[in-house]
Amino acid sequence: MIGVHTASRLCASVRTYNRGVALSEFGLIERFFRRPARSSSVVLAGGDDAALIAPTVGFEIALSVDMLVENRHFFHGVDPQALGHKSLAVNLSDMAAMGATPRWALLAGALPAADPQWLAAFARGFFDLADAFGVDLIGGDTTQGPLNLCVTIAGEVPAGQAIRRGGAKTGDDVYVSGELGASALAVAALQDRVALDADALTSSRMRLDWPAPRVALGERLRSVATAMLDVSDGLTGDLTHILDASGVGAAIELAAIPRSSALDALLATPARDVAIECLLAGGDDYELLFTAPPSSAPTLAALSRDLELPLTRIGWITVERGLTVTDEHGDALGAVPRAFDHFAGDSQA
Amino acid sequence: MIGVHTASRLCASVRTYNRGVALSEFGLIERFFRRPARSSSVVLAGGDDAALIAPTVGFEIALSVDMLVENRHFFHGVDPQALGHKSLAVNLSDMAAMGATPRWALLAGALPAADPQWLAAFARGFFDLADAFGVDLIGGDTTQGPLNLCVTIAGEVPAGQAIRRGGAKTGDDVYVSGELGASALAVAALQDRVALDADALTSSRMRLDWPAPRVALGERLRSVATAMLDVSDGLTGDLTHILDASGVGAAIELAAIPRSSALDALLATPARDVAIECLLAGGDDYELLFTAPPSSAPTLAALSRDLELPLTRIGWITVERGLTVTDEHGDALGAVPRAFDHFAGDSQA
Repeated sequence: MIGVHTASRLCASVRTYNRGVALSEFGLIERFFRRPARSSSVVLAGGDDAALIAPTVGFEIALSVDMLVENRHFFHGVDPQALGHKSLAVNLSDMAAMGATPRWALLAGALPAADPQWLAAFARGFFDLADAFGVDLIGGDTTQGPLNLCVTIAGEVPAGQAIRRGGAKTGDDVYVSGELGASALAVAALQDRVALDADALTSSRMRLDWPAPRVALGERLRSVATAMLDVSDGLTGDLTHILDASGVGAAIELAAIPRSSALDALLATPARDVAIECLLAGGDDYELLFTAPPSSAPTLAALSRDLELPLTRIGWITVERGLTVTDEHGDALGAVPRAFDHFAGDSQA
Repeated sequence: MIGVHTASRLCASVRTYNRGVALSEFGLIERFFRRPARSSSVVLAGGDDAALIAPTVGFEIALSVDMLVENRHFFHGVDPQALGHKSLAVNLSDMAAMGATPRWALLAGALPAADPQWLAAFARGFFDLADAFGVDLIGGDTTQGPLNLCVTIAGEVPAGQAIRRGGAKTGDDVYVSGELGASALAVAALQDRVALDADALTSSRMRLDWPAPRVALGERLRSVATAMLDVSDGLTGDLTHILDASGVGAAIELAAIPRSSALDALLATPARDVAIECLLAGGDDYELLFTAPPSSAPTLAALSRDLELPLTRIGWITVERGLTVTDEHGDALGAVPRAFDHFAGDSQA
C-alpha cells in the first residue's frame, strides 16, 4: 500500500522531520496539569493509557470535542489565561446546549514551546473554570507543534432528557439568553471595521475572551425547551440548524435581539450594517438559543430571575420553512447576513 | 484582565487573522465522515452540540486522547489512507493497553485545505479500522490550520477489571506481544542512519504506517496481566512507567526481545548501536507490554496460539528498583538507550 510516489515524497520530507524539544521540558505539563480528581466518579485520571470513569446509572453520556487553532479561533499573543478559560468554556457550552452536566475533560495541545509562565497562566484559566463547574481534567496529550488546543468534554444527562435541535414546533417562541454580538463587535473593532470607545471595546473584548457557558440554564431547560443549541457561529446560521433539524421556519425581530448599549448605538450610525452583521451573524457568543411553547413564558421568566440572566423572546416558529428577519419598522431584511464570523470554515460533525 | 501589553500585541496580530476557507469546502467533511452509527449504544451521533451514548451498566468508561502533528508524528506527504488508519490505531492501542473494548471515537482535525481526494483516502483508512473493531465515529470538529489530527477514544471495561500500570509484582514475568523496533528501524532507514534492502524497508514501513492495535489481546489479558501498557515511546521508557508505578525493578534480556529478521541481522553489523536503539528505545510499535505471574505461562501460550500472535517473555520483575538489560553474553549493557524516538517531547497526562 506504499506506492513509489508516496515513498519518494516521504524521503524528501524526512530530512525536515522534527524530533523536537526534550522530554524534560514537557515535564512542565505534568507540573501544571496533573491534579487529583475531585469527583468520586473518576476511577483513574492521568498516568496511564486511558482515564477511567464510572458513569451514573440511568444517565446518558454526552461527548463533544472542539479544536482551537491560533490565528483562526484566537489571536496570536492572546492572554494565555483567557485562552485556558475559553478552550474549556466553548466545550462547557456544548454540554449546556444539550442540557447536560459537564463532568470530565481531556486536554490535547500542540505548543510551539513549553514556556512555564504561559503554561501556568493557561492552566489557571482552564482550572478556574473547571473548578467553577465541578469538571475534572482526567487526561490529555501534549506535543510540540503549531499552537492548537483540542478539548474533549464528557458530561451526563438523564436518559432521554437531552435537548436536541430537532424538537422545535410551529407556534413555539424563540428565545436567547444574555446578549448577542459583542464578541463579533470586538473583532470588528480590532480589525478597524468600526470605532469603539475604550470602555465599549474592553467590555466587548471580555465577551470574546471570557465567554460564560450557560450550564445552569441548560440543565434547567431540560423539561422546558423543545430544541436548543449554543450560538457559536452566529444567530441566523445556528437558528437555521434548529429549523432544518425540526422541519419548520422562524420569524425573528431585529429590535428584539438583546444587545449591548454600544452595539445598540451603532445601529443608528453609518456602521449599521456591521452592527446588524454582529447581531445576526456574529459568532463566539456562547449564549443558548432555544425554542419553547408560549405556555412556558411564566416558567422562563422565573428561571431568568433565579439565574439573574436575561432570557429574551426574539421571535417565533412558523410552519412555513425559511427564516424571516424584520427590522425596527416591521419590514423584512432583504439580505440576512449569515456565516460572517471568524470561525468560517469550521464544520462540526 | 486585558493588559495594555496584551492588547497591543493583539492589535498587531489581528491584521494577519485568517478568516480561512469557505464553509462550503468543509461540507466535504460531512460527505466523508458522517455515517449512521452501527451500535445501539449510540443514542445520537453528529449534527448536534454533542453526541449521546448509553453506557453499559456495570462497566467503567475508558477515555483517552492522542494528537498527531505533521513532521512530528508523521511525515509530510504520508499516504492519507495510512494516516487515517494510524490516527485511530494509536487510540485503539490505548484502549487495548487498559484491557478495554474501544467503542466510540471523536475526530478533530485541522487541515491546510479540504482536498476531496485526500479526505476520501483518510476516511477510508479511518473507517476500515473503525469497522474492524466495531467503533462508531460519533462526533468531531474540523477547521482550517496546520495539519493536526486529534482523536478521542472511549471504550468500556467491566468495573474494576481495567489493567493499570501499577500492579507488577516481584517475580512476575515481563512479556511483549509481536515484535519490537520495526517502526524505529523504518525511520532510521528513511533518515539514512542504516541501510535496508527494499523488502526490509517495505515491511518496516508497514509497521510504522499501519500499526495493528492489540485489542483482542488486551481484553483477554484482563484476568491474567498484573500491569500493562502499549509500547508507544520505546520498550525501556515504557517499561520504566510500569516499574515506577509498581515500585519494582526489572531485568530484561536483549536476546529475548522479539524482532524482525532485518533488525536481527543488523545486530551483527557496525550498525549494532542503531539496532539496539530501535529494539530498546524505538517508539511507535503499539505492541502490548505486560507482566504476569509465572503460573500464567500455560494460559499465555494458549492465548498466543488462539490469537496467532507471539507473546514473548523478555525478562522478569525484581525487588530491586531500576532496569537492567543484559546482552547476548549475559553482560549488563552499560548505557541503556531511552527516549530515543521521533515522539521525544510528548507528554501524556
